[in-house]
Amino acid sequence: MGVAEKLASEQKSISVAEFFEKNKHLLGFDSPTRGIITTIKEAVDNALDACEEAEVLPDIWVSVTKLTKDTIRVAVEDNGPGIVPDNVPYVFGKLLYGSRFHQIRQSRGQQGIGISAAVLFAQLTTGVPARIISRTGADKPAYLFELMIRTEKNEPEIIRKEEHEWDRTHGTRIELEFTGTLTAKRRLIDYLKYTSVVNPHARIQADIDGEWFSFERVSNEVIVSPQAIAPHPHGIEFGMLKRMAASSTDNAQDFLVNGFSRVGAKSAEQMLAIAGIKDSRKVKGLTAEQLKSLLSAMQEVDVPPPPASLCLSPIGEEMIVQGLEQEFSLDFVKARTRKSQVFSGHPFIVEAAIGYGGKLEPEGQALLLRFANRVPLLYQQGACAITTAAAGINWRSYNISQQSLPIGPVLLLVHVASTNVPFTSESKDAVAAIPEIEKEITLALQDLGRELKNFISKRDRNKVAEDRARAVCSIIPDIAEKVAEIVERPVPDISPIEGQIMRRVVAKKKTTDGIVGISVMNYTRNPIEVMVYSLSEDNPEKAVPKPDFIDTIGTEFNAVWRITIEAETAWKVTYPGKGRGSIDIRGVDEKMKVVVDLDGE
Amino acid sequence: MGVAEKLASEQKSISVAEFFEKNKHLLGFDSPTRGIITTIKEAVDNALDACEEAEVLPDIWVSVTKLTKDTIRVAVEDNGPGIVPDNVPYVFGKLLYGSRFHQIRQSRGQQGIGISAAVLFAQLTTGVPARIISRTGADKPAYLFELMIRTEKNEPEIIRKEEHEWDRTHGTRIELEFTGTLTAKRRLIDYLKYTSVVNPHARIQADIDGEWFSFERVSNEVIVSPQAIAPHPHGIEFGMLKRMAASSTDNAQDFLVNGFSRVGAKSAEQMLAIAGIKDSRKVKGLTAEQLKSLLSAMQEVDVPPPPASLCLSPIGEEMIVQGLEQEFSLDFVKARTRKSQVFSGHPFIVEAAIGYGGKLEPEGQALLLRFANRVPLLYQQGACAITTAAAGINWRSYNISQQSLPIGPVLLLVHVASTNVPFTSESKDAVAAIPEIEKEITLALQDLGRELKNFISKRDRNKVAEDRARAVCSIIPDIAEKVAEIVERPVPDISPIEGQIMRRVVAKKKTTDGIVGISVMNYTRNPIEVMVYSLSEDNPEKAVPKPDFIDTIGTEFNAVWRITIEAETAWKVTYPGKGRGSIDIRGVDEKMKVVVDLDGE
Repeated sequence: MGVAEKLASEQKSISVAEFFEKNKHLLGFDSPTRGIITTIKEAVDNALDACEEAEVLPDIWVSVTKLTKDTIRVAVEDNGPGIVPDNVPYVFGKLLYGSRFHQIRQSRGQQGIGISAAVLFAQLTTGVPARIISRTGADKPAYLFELMIRTEKNEPEIIRKEEHEWDRTHGTRIELEFTGTLTAKRRLIDYLKYTSVVNPHARIQADIDGEWFSFERVSNEVIVSPQAIAPHPHGIEFGMLKRMAASSTDNAQDFLVNGFSRVGAKSAEQMLAIAGIKDSRKVKGLTAEQLKSLLSAMQEVDVPPPPASLCLSPIGEEMIVQGLEQEFSLDFVKARTRKSQVFSGHPFIVEAAIGYGGKLEPEGQALLLRFANRVPLLYQQGACAITTAAAGINWRSYNISQQSLPIGPVLLLVHVASTNVPFTSESKDAVAAIPEIEKEITLALQDLGRELKNFISKRDRNKVAEDRARAVCSIIPDIAEKVAEIVERPVPDISPIEGQIMRRVVAKKKTTDGIVGISVMNYTRNPIEVMVYSLSEDNPEKAVPKPDFIDTIGTEFNAVWRITIEAETAWKVTYPGKGRGSIDIRGVDEKMKVVVDLDGE
Repeated sequence: MGVAEKLASEQKSISVAEFFEKNKHLLGFDSPTRGIITTIKEAVDNALDACEEAEVLPDIWVSVTKLTKDTIRVAVEDNGPGIVPDNVPYVFGKLLYGSRFHQIRQSRGQQGIGISAAVLFAQLTTGVPARIISRTGADKPAYLFELMIRTEKNEPEIIRKEEHEWDRTHGTRIELEFTGTLTAKRRLIDYLKYTSVVNPHARIQADIDGEWFSFERVSNEVIVSPQAIAPHPHGIEFGMLKRMAASSTDNAQDFLVNGFSRVGAKSAEQMLAIAGIKDSRKVKGLTAEQLKSLLSAMQEVDVPPPPASLCLSPIGEEMIVQGLEQEFSLDFVKARTRKSQVFSGHPFIVEAAIGYGGKLEPEGQALLLRFANRVPLLYQQGACAITTAAAGINWRSYNISQQSLPIGPVLLLVHVASTNVPFTSESKDAVAAIPEIEKEITLALQDLGRELKNFISKRDRNKVAEDRARAVCSIIPDIAEKVAEIVERPVPDISPIEGQIMRRVVAKKKTTDGIVGISVMNYTRNPIEVMVYSLSEDNPEKAVPKPDFIDTIGTEFNAVWRITIEAETAWKVTYPGKGRGSIDIRGVDEKMKVVVDLDGE
């Protein structure tokens, strides 16, 4: 037998389950510590996706139990719509099986691999079958399954299937036993915490080896599952077009209008005219050459970008700020949701936030929170485009010290939402280096960086002024005494001088939870009569107390309050708004007034 | 229809070809520039693997032709054993098909994905079928195939198959056309260059868009393909043991001895005794509980590590040094091949080298050359355990400045050879963070770092002494003149003083191409009589001139030459050897002698 024949005799198909069993680290099962987190992540992702489909507020219960020194049982239960009994074996017992792979819309799970990989990992390490209970409605029985995966075939093996008493009317529960340790408990709790930050509509409760954690929902608004859209004509490749054409019974005009998003009758006509294809021609019969002409014509005709608002579900600036403030009690926090953009025909949205101070570690590297499609990314920070983009920014120009990432009590949050997040591996740990995405992240963080710079420099300026005043005041009595001694006169009354330095009128603006608050404190020893000006896009109609005067300048409102403030007392006004804009006071000497905008603009 | 039923209706299987078509970036086809390099890499990997199997010196021919502005044709041809016609469609037209996936031994290709993925990428972007010619011997015809992949099924589609006139007697040629650009030409050439560095037995010639590159073989020694070994008892998981037992007809004793490497009759007996299983018991019938006991017993019994020398093929220190010197003409280069180690039952060997000076860029970050199983890793440097380990070393303690990686004219080479290199993704760009591997890399680089430190400090010491002497000598005439002026005496003869500073006896050792050279230069103005000592493991028997005296100390030889050297002349001796060890001269004043070991020890 020659070498070629010997080699041929050894060649054979490899099942995808065998492939991922051997390469389990690609799916995030590289170590017993990580296995637990990956399993929970996959189960929670599925639960959140399913609840969105069913338009249910997610209620997720996670349990981790140490069975022996190195065996762990993980259970995840949800109140989702459940899985019909016929599909349960495939959803949990076959890799590459799912509903979202062929759909163009934002979802957490996409590949139909994750949860089956957890089942595979469990059977590989302990041989114990996965236990699944699912129920699809109050009028239907719950079913209990015990499942394994036939690795060589990548097909489910049903060990047990039976009706089961269950107190839930709908939902799914999965239990897995595998070799693992709880050394990464801290990270697991972080995962649950960050999941709840970007899923404010979810309640997540966890019993981790006897310790109880509860992450309550902050919002009672059901998140509606994004809609699947048709492919965009600018994001399609030849092979896919060929396949779509081969399986279509439409004529060319209908094929373009029905098969692609943003293609109307007129654009379709233009495309076909450029390609030299008749409208009425059935696409099934087009030659490879004709399809190539059509593909190139499709790129030439301008059409609007994909309808991101339908298929994407960003978290929103307000929700991000709320989530972060609750967790870290920040001195400064701002978020940005950028406009949707497109890479290779896939729509995406970048959201970012910067937080400062509060409970953040005052020293060391910034805390970088990375998210993709509302899922926290916990591993491979170094390999992620989010990290590269954040480290690539010149933070020093925002007066923040930097060692690749910023240094100090800084938090950076970045969320990439897309119909097709380009991960660097199946374990979905890191976003690949796509220039369009990196650019959006950079722009969002730069924008926020400027805001943080303003905040820090105002804070520092105030602090410097105050420190200086305090220093001067503390030596004035000594100076006065010394001078009196030298000139042989009694010590003078220094309080007017002190007042001149320290006693000022201070105006502050701070916006919390959508309420703008402006306060003016009269630290002088005399009553003052001042005018408070607020120029912003917020309508001050509902302000308490009402402004004496409102003027509209373009889209902005200029509100004026005319007030008298007694010595050493404060005045305050509040009204609903976002707090962008500026304030000022008139009627006191420039040297007497301090204006502080805590919203950082 | 309820939500669960609606979801169920959307659930379906995803073929592995569909999966990787959508996630083509996981396989290294994320951009048109990279697609070319990945395609060539996969084809060259296969060619080198096949030549090793056939024990043929590889002769590989690569061609890249620009067809249109954005269409490229790549062809790779080898003189390997060829592929039998029946298997050609599967090797190139089905993902997860191959001979090496189930074998435990070092090879470049392992997954049976790479080259079919290139075919998939070509048909996705241009729709042009892959063209393959293969011939398995002079007595057999060559066959030409045109192939595509049925993506939905992951099965090959034969567009054309016919006998073909071919001037080669055996080998394989693949031609692919895809969308791509040649902007990464530099990186492609680097890839070919580094491939030739770690495959010194291969000749690689390339015609890249009309420009001709040739990388000649440095060694004519055929590399014998490593042998496949049985799994190691300490590296097996429950699921795999269960599968092996289920498909075995052996009794327990034979099962352990035949099925696992390093398990002899005695170890098998011990394992079975601990597990409480009879030797004669057929393993097919063992219960899950019994298999668990057996698995745990297998871990308890000490057995030698896997036979790395059979299944691994390191490059070797000499070959690495030779390859690097040829490429970079380094001032200093050392390599280390570490002993084999084991992670999760997989044997691996780390090799490393450090180079300094020569043609390396004098400034900026060190050049880090990463290799796995003799394949250069070109992308995702930041995500690689090799990078982490290299950056984690405190290079400053070796007097090398550092900004994560070393700074300056430094080259680091690391090669990880294993039966199962844990890559971070299918594109095989980066080695995953396995502690055992990181530790070996760190130890190898630290060892080499110490050598580099010695080299640099000796060089610096000599340089400082010389600079100082030169500085002093240059001002002595002025001082002499000034002093003469002040004391009003004639200017003295300063040459003795100058001589005292500059005129010394300098001994040097430098080893090149396996020849140790020791030279002694007498810069003084008098003849000297000295004894030259060399203490090393090199046998100086064949030295020219012969030593006056050889003494053996353990495994080392102490050679002594007694010589007279005239004023301002040099003496030299050479002999074959590796040059480790030390030299010294006696018979001149300590202050008069300078000893330089250019081999860095």
